[in-house]
Amino acid sequence: MNKQRVLTGITTTGTPHLGNYVGAIRPAIEASRADDTESFLFLADYHALIKCQDPAMVRQSSKEIAATWLALGLDTERAVFYRQSDVPEITELTWILCCNAAKGLMNRAHAYKAAVQANEEAGEDPDFGVTMGLFSYPVLMAADILLFGAHQVPVGRDQVQHVEMARDIAQRFNHNFAELFTLPSAVVDDNVALLQGLDGRKMSKSYNNTIPLFLPEKQLRKSINKIKTNLLEPGEPKNPDDSTVFQIWAAFASAGETARMRREFEAGIAWGEAKKQLFELINDELSAPRERYLQLLDDPSHIEQVLQRGAERARSYSMPLLKQVREAVGIARMD
Amino acid sequence: MNKQRVLTGITTTGTPHLGNYVGAIRPAIEASRADDTESFLFLADYHALIKCQDPAMVRQSSKEIAATWLALGLDTERAVFYRQSDVPEITELTWILCCNAAKGLMNRAHAYKAAVQANEEAGEDPDFGVTMGLFSYPVLMAADILLFGAHQVPVGRDQVQHVEMARDIAQRFNHNFAELFTLPSAVVDDNVALLQGLDGRKMSKSYNNTIPLFLPEKQLRKSINKIKTNLLEPGEPKNPDDSTVFQIWAAFASAGETARMRREFEAGIAWGEAKKQLFELINDELSAPRERYLQLLDDPSHIEQVLQRGAERARSYSMPLLKQVREAVGIARMD
Repeated sequence: MNKQRVLTGITTTGTPHLGNYVGAIRPAIEASRADDTESFLFLADYHALIKCQDPAMVRQSSKEIAATWLALGLDTERAVFYRQSDVPEITELTWILCCNAAKGLMNRAHAYKAAVQANEEAGEDPDFGVTMGLFSYPVLMAADILLFGAHQVPVGRDQVQHVEMARDIAQRFNHNFAELFTLPSAVVDDNVALLQGLDGRKMSKSYNNTIPLFLPEKQLRKSINKIKTNLLEPGEPKNPDDSTVFQIWAAFASAGETARMRREFEAGIAWGEAKKQLFELINDELSAPRERYLQLLDDPSHIEQVLQRGAERARSYSMPLLKQVREAVGIARMD
Repeated sequence: MNKQRVLTGITTTGTPHLGNYVGAIRPAIEASRADDTESFLFLADYHALIKCQDPAMVRQSSKEIAATWLALGLDTERAVFYRQSDVPEITELTWILCCNAAKGLMNRAHAYKAAVQANEEAGEDPDFGVTMGLFSYPVLMAADILLFGAHQVPVGRDQVQHVEMARDIAQRFNHNFAELFTLPSAVVDDNVALLQGLDGRKMSKSYNNTIPLFLPEKQLRKSINKIKTNLLEPGEPKNPDDSTVFQIWAAFASAGETARMRREFEAGIAWGEAKKQLFELINDELSAPRERYLQLLDDPSHIEQVLQRGAERARSYSMPLLKQVREAVGIARMD
């Protein structure tokens, strides 16, 4: 078996937006269709608890995110799609890895160091507001990855260090006990589009400049109309390369359609017209999934069934490996 | 129901010795017989992993310790007796509590601070050799305690702080989410005998001065003969209050027998004679349990069966509570 295992966690906070779709969801779904890969995709609800103390939001976000991936055509017969909290082996492995992970490693994690720096600048205690969840999160992430023998973990640049920590912890375990863990590699795809938001900065929940993925048609149109443009009149030539409208267009259109729009910009297309066409392009791609998304939200027991089936498949990997790990460290039945 | 729940964890490293018996095992078994208490006793094998990287030793020690408690007459129909690693809810709850425990709390834990101080004195990095297991151990201990709604946790003075941390974490959770956790209290019994070892210091594995609990008769006699005494001859009066022989005698004998031995000391009993009587006293108390202990070690599948039954009982408490905890933080099925 030479299939590459690819693992992706999706933190269940917030509502997916166009940037998530273009930058993460669409490529992951495409990758999951390749014959030479086995995809593991999971709702990282135990990670969500680090950031989110609002139970209703964790619940709602899990539902929306699961419905989003299913509506966009994730083939759950092929990919293993599960909810982290349905796999108790993950937290068990987390503890075992804790006993093999140096605290010094966590001291050097970027997310933790950033929190400490912010506290120091604010004149607070370095660990002010830092929970053990935030501090130990790289160990949970290592368990997520190692329990499924992932070869590849597609991540943004800011997460590369955490995959390296998982690798480090795995090596230490393999050396001390038994060669049970596959060493994972971070995969950063620099070709994936980083979408701009309404204000021209990177589209991100923290900038409050997003276009939610499954807005109703009317609101999608309104939202696109709010994209910041310059004051050039209809007929005046426009530079596509400094335009958010064009940048989003290119993330959705074919190469041919992108070339055509570039010419239209140079010919002085009116902003209103460009936005109208952008709305139609996006709406064409998303209207059928939006329909399915709304149906799924109305049928949570179907989503639950899919997740339960996914958890069963996930556990067919995690249970035998955890059993070996337990035996390797001395946790075993006596008979 | 006004029963007090009392919880005791037994770390599965090392072989039980007379000091463990007198200071912890015997009083816990006695307490478990009281009508107004419900005792939870568990083999803390996930704690053992913090200290012990030797799987054979973790396995062997779990077996010996389980056999010890059973041989000494722990009534497992009354007390809930289980192995920590058979209750996966414990590590799940550990993660949820991590998200609610301040890292600053762990920074102040005595065991961690002692490790840092030792490193600093040795000119090492403060976190040299410190694992995430050692650092987060108070959170695991909080999960052990809170998952079973323990009111009382009998501990030595050095562990009081950890029970207070569990209480602190419980209060924070109850305040933020829902009143699900009983607030535990540490119970320190200053009347419990702290046994002296062969060299007159406290009997402890770390001083290498212990008398293992279930030594074969011959070796028990030999070991008792090694207890350090002074050079006073037979016939010379001896001070019982600075004698390890007398101190151990008092931990095993009735009040009447202790008074008699005090008189014998004052009348100048020979050390050889005092040790012979001490051997007989201890051997009388331990020979029947020793017999059962050896039988149990020969029948690990019986021990395993008892532990499995215990885990089932333990999980009848831990599963419903964890379900409530999960729901309180937003981890729940969608249907």
